[in-house]
Amino acid sequence: MLMIRTVIRPERENEVMKALEKSGIYAMTKIPVLGRGRQRGIQVGRVSYDILAKLMIILFVEDADYEKAIQAIECGADTGHPGDGRIFVQSVSESYSVRTGVKE
Amino acid sequence: MLMIRTVIRPERENEVMKALEKSGIYAMTKIPVLGRGRQRGIQVGRVSYDILAKLMIILFVEDADYEKAIQAIECGADTGHPGDGRIFVQSVSESYSVRTGVKE
Amino acid sequence: MLMIRTVIRPERENEVMKALEKSGIYAMTKIPVLGRGRQRGIQVGRVSYDILAKLMIILFVEDADYEKAIQAIECGADTGHPGDGRIFVQSVSESYSVRTGVKE
Repeated sequence: MLMIRTVIRPERENEVMKALEKSGIYAMTKIPVLGRGRQRGIQVGRVSYDILAKLMIILFVEDADYEKAIQAIECGADTGHPGDGRIFVQSVSESYSVRTGVKE
Repeated sequence: MLMIRTVIRPERENEVMKALEKSGIYAMTKIPVLGRGRQRGIQVGRVSYDILAKLMIILFVEDADYEKAIQAIECGADTGHPGDGRIFVQSVSESYSVRTGVKE
Repeated sequence: MLMIRTVIRPERENEVMKALEKSGIYAMTKIPVLGRGRQRGIQVGRVSYDILAKLMIILFVEDADYEKAIQAIECGADTGHPGDGRIFVQSVSESYSVRTGVKE
């Protein structure tokens, strides 16, 4: 099982959600966050925005769904501009259902 | 050291906190989040709730406290209904105290 | 690539941000959280504060930037009092840019 964490533009939330659903991935957790990438925020005329509102989405997926999930996120979140976000993958050693106690 | 992350019903917060305290586990971080499990939210009559308010609790525990922590969360969060949440376990390579710099 | 997660006093946010920037680390994600460490909150006179507002900062850094990042966080967040927070390090298996698809 893998944990896929992505930080995206908040305005791409619907596109990413729809792309994930099309791939059969429904379970997810969303957290509004603040952040910036390596480009250090954005410059609009004379005003620079150092820290921007972003959306963090966390997915726990089977190893077999890995590529589908990455493609869905990239497809939904990509605008072609810096600040589109990143995707991070980490391994999960165990996962339990609270109700059934079943371990995966 | 392990990182235990659980996403539970917000209304079970107190029960989970008490169960963890009874097991001697005090250190924790809480984040209100939005999310859904594989059941894709809930249906109440004709209205479906796609995304629900959940509470994410993050614990960093010694390997020896692993089973105690899982049991406390399951015990506190379980209502017997779908949507009770999940528990995810990941390994942590290092942990430092900011004040003392001591590494665990 | 490593994921460094720290939970600090919110009032040390600026110091930690500046220390990270001085070390050349700009990319970061911030989340206001609630939590407590092993000291179980603080006692002020007769009033005890069980759960405190904290700030979680998440960094994804190259292995080579590991020590710089830890030192910057410790330097910025340390007040010498219990409750200064902790730093947790986890490995990341993969990281993608949404826009370019480049994997690191």
